[in-house]
Amino acid sequence: MTNKDLFNQIKVKQSFLCVGLDVDIDLFPAEIRDQPDKIFNFSKSIIDATAQYCVAFKLNIAFFEAYGTEGWKSLEKVMDYLNNYYPEIFTIADAKRADIGNTSKRYAKAYFDNFDFDSITVAPYMGADSVEPFLTYKDKYTILLALTSNKGAADFQLLSSGDNMLYEKVIKTSLAWQNSNQLMFVVGATRADALINIRKLIPEHFLLIPGIGAQGGSLEDVAKTGLNNQCGLLVNSSRAIIYASNKFDYADKARLAAKKIQENMKEILIQNHII
Amino acid sequence: MTNKDLFNQIKVKQSFLCVGLDVDIDLFPAEIRDQPDKIFNFSKSIIDATAQYCVAFKLNIAFFEAYGTEGWKSLEKVMDYLNNYYPEIFTIADAKRADIGNTSKRYAKAYFDNFDFDSITVAPYMGADSVEPFLTYKDKYTILLALTSNKGAADFQLLSSGDNMLYEKVIKTSLAWQNSNQLMFVVGATRADALINIRKLIPEHFLLIPGIGAQGGSLEDVAKTGLNNQCGLLVNSSRAIIYASNKFDYADKARLAAKKIQENMKEILIQNHII
Repeated sequence: MTNKDLFNQIKVKQSFLCVGLDVDIDLFPAEIRDQPDKIFNFSKSIIDATAQYCVAFKLNIAFFEAYGTEGWKSLEKVMDYLNNYYPEIFTIADAKRADIGNTSKRYAKAYFDNFDFDSITVAPYMGADSVEPFLTYKDKYTILLALTSNKGAADFQLLSSGDNMLYEKVIKTSLAWQNSNQLMFVVGATRADALINIRKLIPEHFLLIPGIGAQGGSLEDVAKTGLNNQCGLLVNSSRAIIYASNKFDYADKARLAAKKIQENMKEILIQNHII
Repeated sequence: MTNKDLFNQIKVKQSFLCVGLDVDIDLFPAEIRDQPDKIFNFSKSIIDATAQYCVAFKLNIAFFEAYGTEGWKSLEKVMDYLNNYYPEIFTIADAKRADIGNTSKRYAKAYFDNFDFDSITVAPYMGADSVEPFLTYKDKYTILLALTSNKGAADFQLLSSGDNMLYEKVIKTSLAWQNSNQLMFVVGATRADALINIRKLIPEHFLLIPGIGAQGGSLEDVAKTGLNNQCGLLVNSSRAIIYASNKFDYADKARLAAKKIQENMKEILIQNHII
């Protein structure tokens, strides 16, 4: 998938919503908690209910890994389902991987070749040769952690180094990496103020924005400072959508929650003359 | 497992060797490459051949993930085998994980509860609340990336921030985290010079040292500056041991390669009055 395809989707759906699949069986409706294949079935219902209102699905890999082989098989099944029935929707492996080059190659193989994700989130601490193996894949995106939504972001990401904070240095340095046009960046919704500065550094790149809803960030604040003329934002919501209800009506409630965010996004896109 | 148990093993085996299981089917002997359960069988042979010369096994999770469900099942089987037959050996999930707290909890569950690893490698970029969910597990170790062996380490880890480089800041900051006595740190063998300084910051903590062998670091250099009076080092070798031969004699050659390193380590431990 290319940036252009993604922007087309945004225009068609009048949405820049990413639905986060953090599959937690304890939060599933009691009726399905003991069913076989429950992780896939829950995910499928959420996908079918929300696909018309979102342009991306973000699969939080930790939640699948926590269920061992069952989780891994479900992850394969969910990705098969998405790639077969919703090929136009951008898929994100939220995996926060990266290691020495030889090892990062393996992670790239796992997520790009095997699962056929469109993108993966990657941590920058180990530098260029830990990220470039992901960037060698054509039409795949590497979403680099820049400034995250959590409290601990302040520990290192906001440290000053010369005239820059670490997250600024990460962004600037990464732009010199091979195929850096295939980078996107994670910026937490709780950091809307920093987006003004971030947009100066990377006016064109897409940003993945987690942290609205349960983590307390605001869609309006993020849009005000983060939008560019091709939208340039994927705003994620996980728990507020997929666990909008823990009853039999969970898919319908997820649909309504996604629709409500999409309607806000449509207004924002119109106000900003993007659609 | 505790630091004391680990030091006991080091004294018993006169070794501080960690054998790295980077399972790459393309490098397996041709005879076993097409066999069912090859990843487990190869790992088992290497484990049985080298266990008497090493105190730790480091499983490189990327290499298992790259084989999808088969890799995941093999990982479960290898860990079952290690926990059943070699419970005294320290196991490391080389996974380089970390995410917001809610998600890190899931990774901790996957590697500590489900697989029952003794430790996991973790990336520091997202700060305290991304690492503390791992540290809450009693008698488990969280091995934080400090200064890695790869070229890209220079991109961010060696950046100056005030009087510190980033990796120093990571070490110092992490010492204030909850249960920081359960931290270990990754320092690449190619960074032996920096160990003098690192040992001033963390005289007592264990260090995991990858990068001897294929990556070019030297055991002697690392020992000179990194040892403390409880050894305090786990020096990893992967490819030089497990792919010492790609013929039917691969396990024997792995045994010999491990034995040779162990003999060097024994000498080093004696010279430094640790055993």
